[in-house]
Amino acid sequence: MMDINSFGILGGDKRQAALAESLAADGCTVYAWGLDRLPLSEDVRRSRLEEIVSRCMTIILPLPVTVDGKTLNAPYSGETLALDDSFAGLMQHKEVYGGRMAKLFATSSLWDTAEAYDYYTREEFAVRNAGVTAEAAVAIAVREYEGSLIGGRCLVAGYGRIGRALASLLRGMGAQVTVSARRPRDMAWIEISGCRAVQTEKLGEGEEPYDVVFNTIPALVFPKRVLSRLKPGCLVIDLASAPGGVDFAAAEKLGIRTVHALSLPGKVSPRAAGEIIKQTIYNMMEE
Amino acid sequence: MMDINSFGILGGDKRQAALAESLAADGCTVYAWGLDRLPLSEDVRRSRLEEIVSRCMTIILPLPVTVDGKTLNAPYSGETLALDDSFAGLMQHKEVYGGRMAKLFATSSLWDTAEAYDYYTREEFAVRNAGVTAEAAVAIAVREYEGSLIGGRCLVAGYGRIGRALASLLRGMGAQVTVSARRPRDMAWIEISGCRAVQTEKLGEGEEPYDVVFNTIPALVFPKRVLSRLKPGCLVIDLASAPGGVDFAAAEKLGIRTVHALSLPGKVSPRAAGEIIKQTIYNMMEE
Amino acid sequence: MMDINSFGILGGDKRQAALAESLAADGCTVYAWGLDRLPLSEDVRRSRLEEIVSRCMTIILPLPVTVDGKTLNAPYSGETLALDDSFAGLMQHKEVYGGRMAKLFATSSLWDTAEAYDYYTREEFAVRNAGVTAEAAVAIAVREYEGSLIGGRCLVAGYGRIGRALASLLRGMGAQVTVSARRPRDMAWIEISGCRAVQTEKLGEGEEPYDVVFNTIPALVFPKRVLSRLKPGCLVIDLASAPGGVDFAAAEKLGIRTVHALSLPGKVSPRAAGEIIKQTIYNMMEE
Amino acid sequence: MMDINSFGILGGDKRQAALAESLAADGCTVYAWGLDRLPLSEDVRRSRLEEIVSRCMTIILPLPVTVDGKTLNAPYSGETLALDDSFAGLMQHKEVYGGRMAKLFATSSLWDTAEAYDYYTREEFAVRNAGVTAEAAVAIAVREYEGSLIGGRCLVAGYGRIGRALASLLRGMGAQVTVSARRPRDMAWIEISGCRAVQTEKLGEGEEPYDVVFNTIPALVFPKRVLSRLKPGCLVIDLASAPGGVDFAAAEKLGIRTVHALSLPGKVSPRAAGEIIKQTIYNMMEE
Repeated sequence: MMDINSFGILGGDKRQAALAESLAADGCTVYAWGLDRLPLSEDVRRSRLEEIVSRCMTIILPLPVTVDGKTLNAPYSGETLALDDSFAGLMQHKEVYGGRMAKLFATSSLWDTAEAYDYYTREEFAVRNAGVTAEAAVAIAVREYEGSLIGGRCLVAGYGRIGRALASLLRGMGAQVTVSARRPRDMAWIEISGCRAVQTEKLGEGEEPYDVVFNTIPALVFPKRVLSRLKPGCLVIDLASAPGGVDFAAAEKLGIRTVHALSLPGKVSPRAAGEIIKQTIYNMMEE
Repeated sequence: MMDINSFGILGGDKRQAALAESLAADGCTVYAWGLDRLPLSEDVRRSRLEEIVSRCMTIILPLPVTVDGKTLNAPYSGETLALDDSFAGLMQHKEVYGGRMAKLFATSSLWDTAEAYDYYTREEFAVRNAGVTAEAAVAIAVREYEGSLIGGRCLVAGYGRIGRALASLLRGMGAQVTVSARRPRDMAWIEISGCRAVQTEKLGEGEEPYDVVFNTIPALVFPKRVLSRLKPGCLVIDLASAPGGVDFAAAEKLGIRTVHALSLPGKVSPRAAGEIIKQTIYNMMEE
Repeated sequence: MMDINSFGILGGDKRQAALAESLAADGCTVYAWGLDRLPLSEDVRRSRLEEIVSRCMTIILPLPVTVDGKTLNAPYSGETLALDDSFAGLMQHKEVYGGRMAKLFATSSLWDTAEAYDYYTREEFAVRNAGVTAEAAVAIAVREYEGSLIGGRCLVAGYGRIGRALASLLRGMGAQVTVSARRPRDMAWIEISGCRAVQTEKLGEGEEPYDVVFNTIPALVFPKRVLSRLKPGCLVIDLASAPGGVDFAAAEKLGIRTVHALSLPGKVSPRAAGEIIKQTIYNMMEE
Repeated sequence: MMDINSFGILGGDKRQAALAESLAADGCTVYAWGLDRLPLSEDVRRSRLEEIVSRCMTIILPLPVTVDGKTLNAPYSGETLALDDSFAGLMQHKEVYGGRMAKLFATSSLWDTAEAYDYYTREEFAVRNAGVTAEAAVAIAVREYEGSLIGGRCLVAGYGRIGRALASLLRGMGAQVTVSARRPRDMAWIEISGCRAVQTEKLGEGEEPYDVVFNTIPALVFPKRVLSRLKPGCLVIDLASAPGGVDFAAAEKLGIRTVHALSLPGKVSPRAAGEIIKQTIYNMMEE
């Protein structure tokens, strides 16, 4: 029997488990497959795929849906779920949500006619993740930097979502915050937030007197030339996805301490990450 | 003799005078016409139009360039400057900057071939003005609201530039801030800024327990129906351009105190406004 | 008939009227004398002194209780109430609260045996007033300073209650805040609040590059020597009680704009001031 | 030969090493004993005790000076330094600074005539340490709480130095902050900081809807009765020195996650801690 208001949760990590719990706490009926090695409350029913397909109108796939392009991303499962025509067929006439769906869509032409949506492309998803990322980055800075952030001089390279969230957080904590950007409008926003604005391209022209540097730009913004202008004891935290924006080898030679911090929301705040996914899916369902 | 690095300032108000002084303080040679009844330092040379045309490569017109579409906006001048083919002719081969140029461009076809730029359309101009507007709005709230903003409950309707700047300012001052918006991405930004987010369209569905309400939306967001849900003693400050977003007649009948606050940067912070114009023109000249 | 839970409000200004309304809104029975020229809601009963004495156990006198030492401070009344043995006699067996009671106590030896309390000496009263004062000072700065506070450089001289509240407010608004103090512990608090700390005694040793200066110290901290190191266009707001901490004559000669801002809570935020008095009296009644 | 402006650093941990480096960076000559297993730059001279005694006028002992009351606290040394009359004799005619000196003073009557000062009792030392502690506590909360602090509901129990620093930090990060205190003046400060104030003694009277609870009070503020009113998933971080303010056994039974976080500055931010010691000693030397 098909269960209105029920969700089938397939695969994923702690975020997916947190999502399942949060949906259940909202009063939804939640079935889960592939979270075998994670604890789940009684409110989430561990189920076989067939049961989920027969009962649930709405299916939530993990983030990312797949790593290898062939099987569902299910690191906490003992089983494997192939992404093929057969799976795509089961998903017909469902509402399917997932994160980073492109590789999935390439697995079967049946996806062309499915109601399948990618929450990863949603702006509000990215914004809330930026908040959680910024928070985790601050915690890393406190732990790894041997001095104090309060009153400390911080540079945030880049004023995208993470840069903006991070600058606000650091200033709120009492740091002296400089943000680098390119566009005049960003320079204006930076300044009316009480931060100092510098041109990204001018980094390294003089001495850069920062205690902690956060890079958010996915380009080599910190080559050896710029790194060599940082002061001794400076900590560099790179939040840009691999290969990142820092010449790590050069940094090591220069004796500059670096941290390459990736995928922070899932690692540091899985519950918050699960909430964000849920909220985004709710928004998508309403539209 | 044409003077490289010289500016001709025509008409305008205190912002234009502040702009003239700030350019002079940067080491530029500055000639001004039409600021007769405003004090100017010795660094700004009061001049006739002919002199300015003969000496300056760069001409700065006021904001707005014209009110009536026929003469230059020069409220502090005893003279009148007609905007016609003759004036447009004089401006050929100059770089001309001004704010709200559309009406000017309609005065002569010669403008089609002029190098004339509107700083009012620049995003960074709008952002910095939003900062100054927010600051002035806070000052109005402190003065007009008989209670205290610190710990007070504030509603900011709208999350455009002014809404965003205002929300940040109010929260920084210790208020409990709710912001209304429509787009999911804005709701996300509002929440990761430590504010509460509500749907603009849901305003007035229940009691609205705010001490001070700031409207930034240029649409009737506060009709009688919504106003009647505000609590007694609430102050409503409308920052939206005329006719504004508040039914002022209904507010008066309901005994709700309102302030319609327009053009704040020019009125409250002319020096900041002049700085913003200068900075924007510098950006435009560099590009 | 004596009315338990009733308050008699005598004299005072808008704060006293706000206090009366707020007590009434809390469900108390409130009788008022001497607020003739201020509007009052129906919940506050305008009464003669005899009625108040016969009905109320708790009497609230204004702040200050008296200016001339002979009559009750009642600027909004057409009548005069003499502070003499007769009045002191009526107040026997009452609980009497007021602000700045010393002059009252000197009017009759009967006060020695009265239950009369001064809320003005309470620390929490002073702290909350500091908050309201800081807020009003910020509003003055926005209105009087022609530039922008956001990103502006502010000096707060003194780290007493008002200095602390003001520094926090200004930093929250995005200003760059320097605070002057003397005690090492204050220097420490200033720095861990994200502000810069300087020694008060070193003010004026070099150029003082501030946009707005707020003085909270009741001593001549800004003599001509210090004023002459401020930059042109700087605004100085003196919050210290008369004669204040600024050599106003010297400032005028130097062309420095000054504002001497006194008694801000009563003037700018009478409703907040009334709330603060009420809250303080509640605390005193509980003890 | 006695070296004016030279410091002898004895024992201690990473804070002491950071202090040595910082003094050297200020241009002082620095001799160190007992930091054998910590890296030191060339600017700090590793020395024998005799050399230090013969060269240095100022001696800095560690924090705490001693754990066992018999030997110097020197966890990174292979040697042991007895605290006896002989050591006290060597310290005569020196200026001696250290943290928690009482046990040292009990080791020899010679200390009665020594110039020996305890920086641990200095208020500015405690304030700056509170800042670093607050910062470290926030980092723990981000790491251990699976949700997000931004927009999260935090309770800070106690408004001493750490409570005050923590409340400010959390609010600056965008959390909704409630602070518990007892004194009316503290309630007032909490409220004018934009936080909510509650009576400490009323904790647990109703549901306590917090995401993260920080205790700073060295008394059993969180017995089972109060813990049982916290919501599921709440994280409790106890910053009070042992035995702390939380019934940890009860918390475990209730399934509430707890962290007992002690001595954070030394563990998390040794460089900041070293700076704080240096700054405090400078202040003491000036007086």
